[in-house]
Amino acid sequence: MGIVRVSASVSLDGFSAGPETSHEHPLGIGGERLHRWLFPDDGDRDVPAGGTGAVGDDAAVAARQYADTGAVVVGRLTYDIGVDLWGDVPFPVPTFVVTHRPHEPRAMMSATFTFVTDGVASAVAQARAAAGDRDVLVMGGAAISRQVIAADLADELLLTLVPVLLHRGERLLDHVGTGLTELERTEVVTTAQATHLRYRFLR
Amino acid sequence: MGIVRVSASVSLDGFSAGPETSHEHPLGIGGERLHRWLFPDDGDRDVPAGGTGAVGDDAAVAARQYADTGAVVVGRLTYDIGVDLWGDVPFPVPTFVVTHRPHEPRAMMSATFTFVTDGVASAVAQARAAAGDRDVLVMGGAAISRQVIAADLADELLLTLVPVLLHRGERLLDHVGTGLTELERTEVVTTAQATHLRYRFLR
Repeated sequence: MGIVRVSASVSLDGFSAGPETSHEHPLGIGGERLHRWLFPDDGDRDVPAGGTGAVGDDAAVAARQYADTGAVVVGRLTYDIGVDLWGDVPFPVPTFVVTHRPHEPRAMMSATFTFVTDGVASAVAQARAAAGDRDVLVMGGAAISRQVIAADLADELLLTLVPVLLHRGERLLDHVGTGLTELERTEVVTTAQATHLRYRFLR
Repeated sequence: MGIVRVSASVSLDGFSAGPETSHEHPLGIGGERLHRWLFPDDGDRDVPAGGTGAVGDDAAVAARQYADTGAVVVGRLTYDIGVDLWGDVPFPVPTFVVTHRPHEPRAMMSATFTFVTDGVASAVAQARAAAGDRDVLVMGGAAISRQVIAADLADELLLTLVPVLLHRGERLLDHVGTGLTELERTEVVTTAQATHLRYRFLR
């Protein structure tokens, strides 16, 4: 049985996207900076499945995530903006889109998209079933990632800490619980571009 | 000539203190957790100068900061709460307290306290002069650290990332500028307790 992983690139001030996410600015204004480690050539465009232009240990982190992922959970905005960007999808696996607006299932090259209207817990449960022995990757946006953590559904947090202050935008970790939530750091990968920090939620 | 270093222990969600800082909770409710790496035995109490109970590489990071620091800048609340806690001061160097309320200079065992009423830039300038070849340490609270970064007075940021979510409190890095502020990671020290990340502001 796989685990549920929330994964995001964040600025040192905790933003996983800039403000005003749109087709023009898929990661919000300034937010493309957060993915330079993954797409060093061209910002957020032209994402070939399984190969991004990342190099060295950045590429190794991306490749491992690619290999580990058996299903993906995303929010509706990420889907709506992503489908136009992703020539093929970044993860060719069953993908569950959390949304309030029903939508027919969609097959898109190597992935299938299922639209889940009864909440994030249902989306994660369906994704776990679809992932089999592999992991569920919660790709974002930040609101969906926060909901997964707040509902205590995340087993692992993979933070790619990018050495920049964004000053504004969408915070990944923003009041996602009460009391203290303890984690254990299980891995650190340092590159010139970022610090990849893997944590396990302690329960 | 030394540099100006903002240094803080922060939770994964970016808080350098919990809410409701007081004499009872010097780092806010729950905030003592952030200093466990430094004071493993007793939270935030009984701080001997230059020795904290930290061990291994955590102790090495603390010792280096101690050795590098020639002057300290703190806010008034940190001073007001700190003087009761610090039997001797943690840094036996000239310390500049940014405040709106004038106060006579005070000598306290190994340190002298100067109260600066004309702003954080003046406090940093006075601290730089007093530090000589050593560095200025901006110890907090978060508001003072934010002001120093926002005024572009910080050369270095030393983040001790503690594997916990605090969910509420005082954010260290919160709208401290505009546009993108680029930094370069210059050091990573990983311990069981924390990840010590040193960054240089790029100008």
